[in-house]
Amino acid sequence: MANLSLILLSALALSFSLVFATDPSTLQDFCVTNPIGQGNSVCKDPKLVEANDFFFSGLHIAGNTTNPSGSRVTPVFASQLPGLNTLGISLARIDIAPWGVNPPHLHPRATEILTVLQGTLEVGFITSNPENRHFTKVLQEGDVFVFPIGLIHYQRNIGYGNAVAIAALSSQNPGAITIGNAVFGATPEIFSGVLTKAFQLDKNTINYLHSKF
Amino acid sequence: MANLSLILLSALALSFSLVFATDPSTLQDFCVTNPIGQGNSVCKDPKLVEANDFFFSGLHIAGNTTNPSGSRVTPVFASQLPGLNTLGISLARIDIAPWGVNPPHLHPRATEILTVLQGTLEVGFITSNPENRHFTKVLQEGDVFVFPIGLIHYQRNIGYGNAVAIAALSSQNPGAITIGNAVFGATPEIFSGVLTKAFQLDKNTINYLHSKF
Amino acid sequence: MANLSLILLSALALSFSLVFATDPSTLQDFCVTNPIGQGNSVCKDPKLVEANDFFFSGLHIAGNTTNPSGSRVTPVFASQLPGLNTLGISLARIDIAPWGVNPPHLHPRATEILTVLQGTLEVGFITSNPENRHFTKVLQEGDVFVFPIGLIHYQRNIGYGNAVAIAALSSQNPGAITIGNAVFGATPEIFSGVLTKAFQLDKNTINYLHSKF
Amino acid sequence: MANLSLILLSALALSFSLVFATDPSTLQDFCVTNPIGQGNSVCKDPKLVEANDFFFSGLHIAGNTTNPSGSRVTPVFASQLPGLNTLGISLARIDIAPWGVNPPHLHPRATEILTVLQGTLEVGFITSNPENRHFTKVLQEGDVFVFPIGLIHYQRNIGYGNAVAIAALSSQNPGAITIGNAVFGATPEIFSGVLTKAFQLDKNTINYLHSKF
Amino acid sequence: MANLSLILLSALALSFSLVFATDPSTLQDFCVTNPIGQGNSVCKDPKLVEANDFFFSGLHIAGNTTNPSGSRVTPVFASQLPGLNTLGISLARIDIAPWGVNPPHLHPRATEILTVLQGTLEVGFITSNPENRHFTKVLQEGDVFVFPIGLIHYQRNIGYGNAVAIAALSSQNPGAITIGNAVFGATPEIFSGVLTKAFQLDKNTINYLHSKF
Amino acid sequence: MANLSLILLSALALSFSLVFATDPSTLQDFCVTNPIGQGNSVCKDPKLVEANDFFFSGLHIAGNTTNPSGSRVTPVFASQLPGLNTLGISLARIDIAPWGVNPPHLHPRATEILTVLQGTLEVGFITSNPENRHFTKVLQEGDVFVFPIGLIHYQRNIGYGNAVAIAALSSQNPGAITIGNAVFGATPEIFSGVLTKAFQLDKNTINYLHSKF
Repeated sequence: MANLSLILLSALALSFSLVFATDPSTLQDFCVTNPIGQGNSVCKDPKLVEANDFFFSGLHIAGNTTNPSGSRVTPVFASQLPGLNTLGISLARIDIAPWGVNPPHLHPRATEILTVLQGTLEVGFITSNPENRHFTKVLQEGDVFVFPIGLIHYQRNIGYGNAVAIAALSSQNPGAITIGNAVFGATPEIFSGVLTKAFQLDKNTINYLHSKF
Repeated sequence: MANLSLILLSALALSFSLVFATDPSTLQDFCVTNPIGQGNSVCKDPKLVEANDFFFSGLHIAGNTTNPSGSRVTPVFASQLPGLNTLGISLARIDIAPWGVNPPHLHPRATEILTVLQGTLEVGFITSNPENRHFTKVLQEGDVFVFPIGLIHYQRNIGYGNAVAIAALSSQNPGAITIGNAVFGATPEIFSGVLTKAFQLDKNTINYLHSKF
Repeated sequence: MANLSLILLSALALSFSLVFATDPSTLQDFCVTNPIGQGNSVCKDPKLVEANDFFFSGLHIAGNTTNPSGSRVTPVFASQLPGLNTLGISLARIDIAPWGVNPPHLHPRATEILTVLQGTLEVGFITSNPENRHFTKVLQEGDVFVFPIGLIHYQRNIGYGNAVAIAALSSQNPGAITIGNAVFGATPEIFSGVLTKAFQLDKNTINYLHSKF
Repeated sequence: MANLSLILLSALALSFSLVFATDPSTLQDFCVTNPIGQGNSVCKDPKLVEANDFFFSGLHIAGNTTNPSGSRVTPVFASQLPGLNTLGISLARIDIAPWGVNPPHLHPRATEILTVLQGTLEVGFITSNPENRHFTKVLQEGDVFVFPIGLIHYQRNIGYGNAVAIAALSSQNPGAITIGNAVFGATPEIFSGVLTKAFQLDKNTINYLHSKF
Repeated sequence: MANLSLILLSALALSFSLVFATDPSTLQDFCVTNPIGQGNSVCKDPKLVEANDFFFSGLHIAGNTTNPSGSRVTPVFASQLPGLNTLGISLARIDIAPWGVNPPHLHPRATEILTVLQGTLEVGFITSNPENRHFTKVLQEGDVFVFPIGLIHYQRNIGYGNAVAIAALSSQNPGAITIGNAVFGATPEIFSGVLTKAFQLDKNTINYLHSKF
Repeated sequence: MANLSLILLSALALSFSLVFATDPSTLQDFCVTNPIGQGNSVCKDPKLVEANDFFFSGLHIAGNTTNPSGSRVTPVFASQLPGLNTLGISLARIDIAPWGVNPPHLHPRATEILTVLQGTLEVGFITSNPENRHFTKVLQEGDVFVFPIGLIHYQRNIGYGNAVAIAALSSQNPGAITIGNAVFGATPEIFSGVLTKAFQLDKNTINYLHSKF
């Protein structure tokens, strides 16, 4: 990796002006996301920061679960709570109607720790290859369960009333990948040749799935 | 830092066998804390891991607030929930009686994001030198507030009934330093000469404080 | 988070002896994985380390693709190459027969950068919710493509001969989650009630999928 | 965490343009802080960087200790030495007059390693809850002591002449929280109801303390 | 580190607007480097990102080795492949003519894992002080070797035909320091007084080396 | 990277028991290195930790500079000061006799910030390829200079008396690679064929250099 060609010379100059280096931890007390158009700084001017930048209201309001999966997630990420920027944590409220499901999904950037506030939830996660072990548990009010970062997991309401849970996530922007939506609802569609081979389903079933998602 | 003395030679050999290097992120799906005495591995043998290793029960139970501060914290850290080991997040339930206070303290290793489940809380945090700005807010049920990592903060119940909150923290072992206990209740005591100078209080008040903590 | 209950006292003592802290970067030149049973040290005694600890042979050998997906991955992770321990990178050789597929999967701990050595590959990845955008490209010999950490991706051989690629991954143990195997082949099975709701498929199709994986 | 509401769609779009991702280590040789108004780049154009960007002069000059605490800290952080930006380390000179005190404080983002250049210092730090153990030591010229990140610590000159020390800190911007100033000198003041409860002092003493800080 | 002087006040204000804090891992699916002049955002607007941002072509083309060292490195870093930005990995193709050498150098920010595609390479790396142990190995097609981050290493073609290798590196911008160029070819030159003392060579040899690099 | 071969199955099981995952920051107040043979824990039992574990004495003593380079480095790393383990910082005292040199070297794991306590030093560092720019400065008592992580640097005493400096480093075990020793003094020697090509020196000069180091 020694005598680098000319292309690298311009490359290095470019990288200097476009990439960022940093400590692995924070570099100031906080860095509230700066609203777009208020200067070039990423962090809002600390003199303009106020208590409301660290405040979010509304997690007592039930989410609307009248949808095919019968569940709703209300996120409190850095995008909803600008004071979370750079602090590595966020929240979400999860509402699930009876027999509703928060379908199999994963968070590429966060571990999730869930606390049941109301109702009865069947939850589970699946480990990576080659074992693909399925860990599952039935949770009641006051029960806590951990979904490790990057693993597929789900929740289902197996009780008679609505279920409510608070999920804490180990990133300000954990991201979510819902398996069904990503595989069968991607835009543009994944070629059916890939999916028929991968899921060993006939073309009609794949087309049906494409139509659903 | 070049021609290192002999002491360093043994030093390097020693450091090889005692320090640990790692990715900044996890290196396997999970690493459940291995109970003491079950082999040398830090992670519990994955074949022996079960759903209960990711499970904790009891956050629906109110903490006992019959103590001088009128508050109680119930932790759900890696020590209570071994599945949290290496995953960088934890929880706690906070109970505060009317006019009780969760006194000024900080978490050296975690940002705290708090959700009020019941009651009315006055909360605040103070920034570092030289500003020492005080951000404060009154929270009701469903309100969320962020206490950035390492900053002194507190909560007080200013309502008529008990207050209950769930706090999520961005470390498996956030730690807590209660200012009063650490400064006036340390073992052994900090010499009064330091405290009289630092707090500009007479010796009698310092001794009184020592007796209280 | 201040006046901690007795449970935390034992908790902290426990955590001291079982959790590990570290720099975000390496702490010595290298830390070759110590074979089981050779003392308590994680790193092999540097005096016993030899060049072969950093060496792996066999990536010129084609993997066996006579299997339903028509593809084979040969990993060179820290488990195969102990010198990679703590260094945050690894490799794999990918062989795909004509019309074979490396089915949709993701790496929870690594970005993948793939170089085509032979043949023609159609590759793609899908972004997280809510967009689930599908980025796809046809690659020839000498082409390079990046699959960002944690995102679902796939490769398919759309040429006439075998396709060969080298994938580099940004972790010593990137992990892999094959969507089909994890969702329909988990052990024990995910309750069909979850899957019928999540994928809007009838029970027979779900049972068929369970039988396939 | 799957079927995200519309609010998240805009949220994600926003987060793309305002948050930053990075390696846990540096991404170029150095990233000298770019003076305000010289373009949008965080790093100064490397072609314009000169040796003086890595240079600071004046640590041989004694700080002025004619103040109530009888001590003075002269920082050499990234703000004083722009070449330190992104490099995770900084310095400070500490001057303490006889019987002066560098009052109890902590650094939320750095471990401090202190070397005594002149005089006799009594130093100490206090661990977190529930132990609040006090580690203390008397240091002479050439002695070194470590104050772990986030823990309350102090120094006192118990000798006859001035004391001088060099402190190295494991962050480019370690921050400092002086307990007295933060608790009793915050702006606006912390309600005395919180402080009387937390420190079990009467309202007069609290008001006296407010007046002092 | 407590009673900070006025200089620090402006310092802190400054640091707020110029330093950046972050998670140790990514904060979104990807952050394609934004071409200069397209707004203030570091990440390219995700709506404008396309598959070509993750694509690079040309690693099948042999590098030109008609130069004194008889070797050529073709980099595929974030500067050549903007989709690599923030993802912590990169590639390079290495071509070495018979008896050519990729001279002793190191990568300050990356571990290198090398795969031989063609020919026979003698490779080696040297550990840090005080041992300076030399690990060396002869590699054939399909052999893999690891060069740990920050250590001096080299490759030499000891076969009869051209040698070709793919190197993967654990940073988007690993950097390279070629010992000869850095020590004897620096601009401006290192004073010969330093080099004669360091390498115990006479002034004529040093001048000769300066003329060569 | 999906349908992994059997070799990976045992691989994953193995990696579970030998690799370690962690937060990017500390996980407890401190983790004093546990003396060998005192149980399996990496961290010394906190009940047995005492102030002396954070203490080192002797930096007021001049190092012996009667050696060919006329300089001496006295390290205070985690190996000499066990309380530094996991805290990411260390120190060293540097003594240089008149016209002595701390020869060109680099620290693979740390940035160095140097403070001159006595004498006059000429210092410099060289950037990575392709620029290999040389930044140099003459330092007097009280001057501070930064050597960024991984870059080759040196110090030379150009004054009339001895020079003394304190260097702080951003790792508990920064490591040091002295260019001359590593390239010409490695054990076993680097084949002269590599060095003649790399440094364009005749075999006699290379042999002479081998004999010197």
